[in-house]
Amino acid sequence: MALNIKHLLGLKDVSKNDIQLILDTATTFREVLDRPIKKVPTLKGTTVVNLFYENSTRTRLSFELAEKRLSADTLNFSTSTSSTKKGETFKDTVRNIEAMKIDMIVVRHQSAGVPLYLTKISNAAIINAGDGRHEHPTQALLDMYSIREKLGKLNGVKLCIVGDISHSRVALSNIYGLLTMGAQVSICAPPTMIPKNIESFGVKVYHDINKAIAENDVLNVLRIQLERDAGTTIPTLREYRNYFGVNSDLIEKNNRDILILHPGPINRGVELSSEVADGPYQVILDQVTNGVAIRMAVLYLLGTK
Amino acid sequence: MALNIKHLLGLKDVSKNDIQLILDTATTFREVLDRPIKKVPTLKGTTVVNLFYENSTRTRLSFELAEKRLSADTLNFSTSTSSTKKGETFKDTVRNIEAMKIDMIVVRHQSAGVPLYLTKISNAAIINAGDGRHEHPTQALLDMYSIREKLGKLNGVKLCIVGDISHSRVALSNIYGLLTMGAQVSICAPPTMIPKNIESFGVKVYHDINKAIAENDVLNVLRIQLERDAGTTIPTLREYRNYFGVNSDLIEKNNRDILILHPGPINRGVELSSEVADGPYQVILDQVTNGVAIRMAVLYLLGTK
Amino acid sequence: MALNIKHLLGLKDVSKNDIQLILDTATTFREVLDRPIKKVPTLKGTTVVNLFYENSTRTRLSFELAEKRLSADTLNFSTSTSSTKKGETFKDTVRNIEAMKIDMIVVRHQSAGVPLYLTKISNAAIINAGDGRHEHPTQALLDMYSIREKLGKLNGVKLCIVGDISHSRVALSNIYGLLTMGAQVSICAPPTMIPKNIESFGVKVYHDINKAIAENDVLNVLRIQLERDAGTTIPTLREYRNYFGVNSDLIEKNNRDILILHPGPINRGVELSSEVADGPYQVILDQVTNGVAIRMAVLYLLGTK
Repeated sequence: MALNIKHLLGLKDVSKNDIQLILDTATTFREVLDRPIKKVPTLKGTTVVNLFYENSTRTRLSFELAEKRLSADTLNFSTSTSSTKKGETFKDTVRNIEAMKIDMIVVRHQSAGVPLYLTKISNAAIINAGDGRHEHPTQALLDMYSIREKLGKLNGVKLCIVGDISHSRVALSNIYGLLTMGAQVSICAPPTMIPKNIESFGVKVYHDINKAIAENDVLNVLRIQLERDAGTTIPTLREYRNYFGVNSDLIEKNNRDILILHPGPINRGVELSSEVADGPYQVILDQVTNGVAIRMAVLYLLGTK
Repeated sequence: MALNIKHLLGLKDVSKNDIQLILDTATTFREVLDRPIKKVPTLKGTTVVNLFYENSTRTRLSFELAEKRLSADTLNFSTSTSSTKKGETFKDTVRNIEAMKIDMIVVRHQSAGVPLYLTKISNAAIINAGDGRHEHPTQALLDMYSIREKLGKLNGVKLCIVGDISHSRVALSNIYGLLTMGAQVSICAPPTMIPKNIESFGVKVYHDINKAIAENDVLNVLRIQLERDAGTTIPTLREYRNYFGVNSDLIEKNNRDILILHPGPINRGVELSSEVADGPYQVILDQVTNGVAIRMAVLYLLGTK
Repeated sequence: MALNIKHLLGLKDVSKNDIQLILDTATTFREVLDRPIKKVPTLKGTTVVNLFYENSTRTRLSFELAEKRLSADTLNFSTSTSSTKKGETFKDTVRNIEAMKIDMIVVRHQSAGVPLYLTKISNAAIINAGDGRHEHPTQALLDMYSIREKLGKLNGVKLCIVGDISHSRVALSNIYGLLTMGAQVSICAPPTMIPKNIESFGVKVYHDINKAIAENDVLNVLRIQLERDAGTTIPTLREYRNYFGVNSDLIEKNNRDILILHPGPINRGVELSSEVADGPYQVILDQVTNGVAIRMAVLYLLGTK
């Protein structure tokens, strides 16, 4: 079995079969993570460059761990050490890195479309680790993995994404991937955080968090961008929390069978109460663990084509 | 033989047997460092995260080298790349890193108690690489290793720590470890640099550096914090040097059999004259070499439990 | 076959035999880079420290890749994490790093002579990755490799270096190495960018770029330091480009058999037009690929002495 895709740029055009293969492969690697020796020789001699033009803790660490556990050689390249300061174009930087005969590039960039652009100027396999407001496919894959792990399926599952959908690459990748897998996707957010024409995607819109909780199997709660949102897309953090923050009372009142996902990092007391963030409904740390397995699966499947 | 401890948080509660085992294991690894191939496969498949919240050159490099020579996979995480900027709690950051299924955390932090706290929120083995003014156990272990290497024993050895004892985690770990091993520990410093009730530890206090040199086998000379101490705990650097700086004249006048240790980095011309720093009495670079062996021993003993 | 040199500090005193051996060894490693598994176990257990006191993208990445492909253990040490802030002398820093029993140091430093100084205070094999305005020998070696690859020889080849020769370590290493290998070296630059007495090296001087192109087999076009040169060594960037910038018209008018080299990063539209930078005459990305092979060869030959 092999993937139809050569790069992972987003989930928009990834087939059900390909997503299934990634999730199934991740299951195998997830088992490896519980062994005392968490390493396999699969990508020995393969070089992966982590090209991060945006700060990142968990995503970069997760990819780096996945690469090392597959025995790949890992090189980190971040803006602070970049030649861009010296007036070199982005294209020249990338072509230079690629000329060193590297095999894969994991890229995070503030501009949407950069991973796609890399496929045009490089022969390496490209994995999108988040590009602007576009997509963050490995996050959506690990979300789907975590849901499937708990609920046994994705087909027919009702999931609601809560938060700033307009600015979220996590939301967009979730919507594409989950719809492909047959889930029913909805969103819940203040009107300023909802993209226009979202219903045309086949996505239902909630404005009442009670109803969103009551009618769904899974809540994927997004992070409020503290440094950006207050005063622009929402009046105050307090107001956001009052209307859209998820707390134990809401869950116990509306739906005690709900599963809570969050991509991290959490703003405790804003989009999630601490009780929920540490409580029985959430699978937030499972998502982190599963993220390593998903990234191992993607690296393995694209790296051995 | 196995250690009784599961973490190395400090030397306060580490038994004589455990210290002995670490020192003996380090002897084996010290030999490996003289081989052309300085690598053993002992921790293959083990992942160690170096979590450094304080700048560090030698300690981080020393740990990283020790990890690589044991064939562990190493991940570096420092404040500058941290999500703490995004408002995430320290606890959430650590729990996230740990959820990626890492095995050990080497932590340096400006706050005392952080390594202990990590043991409560993580299943990884924790090694303290320096926490606030609390402890820096691997430094004290490498000091003891270096003394034992030169003098053949620790029991009965008379050692005096010279410098800012009040603010020094190196001093505290030295005192705990050396007393456990049967050494006689004293300190020599201006009154502003001596913690209250230090005599209750069983530690003698010198105010005259001549006497400290004359009556001891070993001097462990601490670094003066140039950027902090002058004007606060001491009037001027010059005055400190005049009263407590160690130079060749003092040694030759008082005790030509003394052994000089220094944890580095050295302020030449302040706490140590250059003659002493490069001279026949000191074992400063041996300490650095031994530090890698000590860290290999600690990583190995805690990582294979 | 073994090198006569123990360190690679520059090409000034490196013999023809030694350069030949490095180039021939690089040919072998260049083939490894086209294999699916680009890794050989040659330097397993060898520790290389990359000591970079100047920002660098491509050179550091290229060395790090070369080290990893030889299976060496790699440690990165850059100014930002250095103890120099704490008042430690450079000598003490280096002796400390070396006391950790590392085998090789790759060093870049803003001051000429630092690599030589390292050989006096350290037992490690030293490789100069660029020191001030002195030398950058691996760059010149990869330039020679790339020329030999295309033209089949170095002896008798006519090469002109275009740009700021006065401030360029690339130029100086090129001149030394190419003259040793029997090439005819010339330079082309405004008078402010030409060192005094350059003719005494046996180097011809052009002031007209047309003539330089017409009379040479190879042009090695240096980078204009945007942030430094304009207004000091040249009136404006525009004026530099008008008189010394290399574009397609100049090449097609004067010499369609010329080979264009550039050490990168390129200032498109200044020293090279984009047409030339991407065109049929240049081998710029080949240089990058060959750079990894050259560095593997140097690390291998010095690391296994």
